[in-house]
Amino acid sequence: MSLAQLPKVLVVGSGGVGTIAALSLWTRKRSNVTLVVRSDYQKIIDKGFTINSCTYGHIENWRPHNVAKSVEDAAKYGEFDYIIVTTKNIPDGKMTCEEIIKPAVSDKSTILLMQNGIGIDTPMHQAFPKNVILSAVTHIGSTNYNGIIENKGPDNVFLGDFKKESSPKVRQIIENFIHIYKNDNDLNFIRVDENVSQTRWEKLIYNSVFNPVTAILNIDVTRCQINGLNDSIFRPAMRELISIAKSEGVEIDEEEKIEKFIHIGDGLFYSPSMCVDQKKNQLMELEIILGNPLKIAAKNGVSTPILSLIYGLVSVVQFRIKESIGLLKINEDDFKIDSDKLHDVYLEKYAHK
Amino acid sequence: MSLAQLPKVLVVGSGGVGTIAALSLWTRKRSNVTLVVRSDYQKIIDKGFTINSCTYGHIENWRPHNVAKSVEDAAKYGEFDYIIVTTKNIPDGKMTCEEIIKPAVSDKSTILLMQNGIGIDTPMHQAFPKNVILSAVTHIGSTNYNGIIENKGPDNVFLGDFKKESSPKVRQIIENFIHIYKNDNDLNFIRVDENVSQTRWEKLIYNSVFNPVTAILNIDVTRCQINGLNDSIFRPAMRELISIAKSEGVEIDEEEKIEKFIHIGDGLFYSPSMCVDQKKNQLMELEIILGNPLKIAAKNGVSTPILSLIYGLVSVVQFRIKESIGLLKINEDDFKIDSDKLHDVYLEKYAHK
Repeated sequence: MSLAQLPKVLVVGSGGVGTIAALSLWTRKRSNVTLVVRSDYQKIIDKGFTINSCTYGHIENWRPHNVAKSVEDAAKYGEFDYIIVTTKNIPDGKMTCEEIIKPAVSDKSTILLMQNGIGIDTPMHQAFPKNVILSAVTHIGSTNYNGIIENKGPDNVFLGDFKKESSPKVRQIIENFIHIYKNDNDLNFIRVDENVSQTRWEKLIYNSVFNPVTAILNIDVTRCQINGLNDSIFRPAMRELISIAKSEGVEIDEEEKIEKFIHIGDGLFYSPSMCVDQKKNQLMELEIILGNPLKIAAKNGVSTPILSLIYGLVSVVQFRIKESIGLLKINEDDFKIDSDKLHDVYLEKYAHK
Repeated sequence: MSLAQLPKVLVVGSGGVGTIAALSLWTRKRSNVTLVVRSDYQKIIDKGFTINSCTYGHIENWRPHNVAKSVEDAAKYGEFDYIIVTTKNIPDGKMTCEEIIKPAVSDKSTILLMQNGIGIDTPMHQAFPKNVILSAVTHIGSTNYNGIIENKGPDNVFLGDFKKESSPKVRQIIENFIHIYKNDNDLNFIRVDENVSQTRWEKLIYNSVFNPVTAILNIDVTRCQINGLNDSIFRPAMRELISIAKSEGVEIDEEEKIEKFIHIGDGLFYSPSMCVDQKKNQLMELEIILGNPLKIAAKNGVSTPILSLIYGLVSVVQFRIKESIGLLKINEDDFKIDSDKLHDVYLEKYAHK
């Protein structure tokens, strides 16, 4: 088949995860791959990426078939069969993911959310009710350092339907995508995720706890553990998260998973993404990692004293970042009033999203 | 009386509080005042302080009778009748207050702790069992900006005995000190504190809650309130603090005091001292403000879920500051082990105090 006849894939977001996804598709030669590259666009047009991947090796000057500087710009490369969303998912940020991908979505586009978190499919379904929306959870370990991709973990993707029961049509789409993505490579593990909820909630045991706490404290996980936080905060917070999952019918082997995540970074002094984001003064994926689970807890009547307190604190960190990047401009004169009225004034005048 | 015959007072710490205390004593002319000035010593020797005080007016080039560059250096100015300790009280810092004042303490010295917090008298009594130790709580509003003292609030001191029942001797010492401190000035309010515990616990309702939370979040009180923390954290944490006070026999009108402190800074966007300290990367008065109340809670079986969680978090902030100023040097190789063993290794190898 000529390139023009192949399925068209748009990868939105050229971080460590998005670039390796584009590379895997490109390597497989069964799709026409467009990658949206925002901040490094000219650099990538000129020189391409440098790839250091345990799965795909060392590659210089790599580019997929098309590189676009925005989603609007990408639209010229096709009606896309697949749109893979790998950007950070920050519904309280400058643009929602729905707004970001809108210019490229056609009726035939299948949208793959290659992102963390819970509840990310709901606004996507609302924005694009006719489109198939799939869950792609990665365990890859890949970072983009200004055009140099350091990818230390296998290309491990769990692809599935957000709905519990998939239609035959959706099952076929999942198989089709695996067909254009899966390389003959022992380290490329894309597979069908039979239980997306389970996969996502289990990943949250780590993310909902270590991410916000290290972001609040601006310090790595190991240093928190040195200070005794395993027992005072991490384990009890993980128990709360697992209770929320259970209230949604997701059964998790509590002790096994808690001990797995408590020890997964032993000795690594690792800073999770939200900690790195606040260090860089960038907005954090707070709502999809912790806010949405807590909304579900409230709906289902699950008690979450520790997670709620952590959410209250990390929300202020997000607020601080919004102010500091100019996304939010507080007029102090609006707040020279009874302190109990401040939150309502804020919600009314400032927090439109 | 000649100056040599007057009682000798040593003021340790030349911040906003200590300098105004020295100024009040000097103005009264009934004592011989020595002030320890560490960081700005030469500047003060050369030019003195500039004072902008609502109580004592505008004064240029002011110095007390003696200025010493250290407590050791001060010892040459006398056997002191009174030693007023106005430094920050950080028992987990480089030096404890007991170690700081030791070179100047003689058998006849009365020690006035002009400092915040609970439990500060215990190590002082242990170090100096023969000396009278008094509590001085100030509400003054005074800051030292490199030798310029901005003092916006009246000179308001509550002087009392840490013990519930004062001996006649101690009562006389308190009266004697008031005699050498109280000026004929409507804004100089030094008075006998008949219930030191009550005074100190009530001040903690503010300090134990607003201080650590704003320090963790690196943001002022009003911005926390904009984000809804009055109800989610501040009020319930204040209730816990009041329960601890009650377990020590200190009765506090809960709703009245909580509402007073919730609204005391309405519209001011104020950053409490611990928040300012962490911003400047200086150690915080964490133990005397929150650690000691929680030790009392544990002893008396008072439940403190919120304050304990906040203490867990702010302890990591203190750890981060200790590392960053070099007071603590973590060898990562010591911690490349089971994360549950890290805290014990830390306590054993690093946290000697």
